[in-house]
This record gives sequence, C-alpha cells and structure tokens, in this order.
Amino acid sequence: MRFTATIHVRPKAEVRDPQGEAILGALGSLGLGVTSVRTGKEIVVTFDADDEAAARRATDTMGRELLANPVIEDFRVELGTA
Amino acid sequence: MRFTATIHVRPKAEVRDPQGEAILGALGSLGLGVTSVRTGKEIVVTFDADDEAAARRATDTMGRELLANPVIEDFRVELGTA
Repeated sequence: MRFTATIHVRPKAEVRDPQGEAILGALGSLGLGVTSVRTGKEIVVTFDADDEAAARRATDTMGRELLANPVIEDFRVELGTA
Repeated sequence: MRFTATIHVRPKAEVRDPQGEAILGALGSLGLGVTSVRTGKEIVVTFDADDEAAARRATDTMGRELLANPVIEDFRVELGTA
C-alpha cells in the first residue's frame, strides 16, 4: 500500500527559535498586532508499507532517526493513504 | 480578539525542492520504501484582530508580503482562536 505522511517538526517550547524571532520583528513592521511567532518544518513523504501499523512504525523511525533532533525538536505525524 | 494561525508555505509543485531531494536520499538508506519527499515551512503566528474576517485579511497579508515568495511558493492558512 502507498501512504503519504506529513511529518511536522517544531523546536521544543523551551528552546529559542531565532527564525521565529526574526519573523516576529519583520511582521511587526506590517502593523498587524503580532505578539508571537514560532516556526517549524513539514516534510511530506510518500512511501510503501504493508499496512497502517507498519506505516506508523516507518514514520516514527523517519522522525526519530533522521528528521527531528530529539534534543531540541518534537515531531508529530499525520498519516494518510496516497 | 486573539487568534493563532498556522501558515504553511510550500514550494510550488513544478519547482525543484533540493532539501526534499536530500532527505529522499537520506531516507533511502533507512530502507523504508520512500518514493518522494517534499518539504515546507510552517509559521505559527499569534496576533490580535477585531474579528475573524480581519484575522483572515491579516494572515493573507503576512503570507503574501512576507512569508511566501509568490514566484516559487504557495501558502495556506489554518486559523483558530487562541
């Protein structure tokens, strides 16, 4: 079966987010009342797996071993069939 | 009213995504049957606006004027109240 997963990677809440701070500064100049900005990445992966349980295991492995740095980042998976 | 919007920014489908290609190569080594990878950014913005219509206009302005490069990127907004 073919699956499509979106893996969202965000800095942990207690970790500084310099990119978000830069965007906050820039958005401030648009005068839109922005008070806080956090940034993250999303990785959309298409892959083959036998069933949904195997697909979940695969996306967990991707997040843990490659896509997120567990010291400073959390990840969350949205799984769908392609 | 306080709103929280997640603005998803992705390269347009016809634009090359070198970061995605690099991740595809790296995920290949995990042997997980990955066939394609696309990457994007997500920006979570907390801001004040009078009502939902004003909040939508504000997030559109953020996406168009600052967060996405319209030549190579599309953006999509998820709006919620904080």
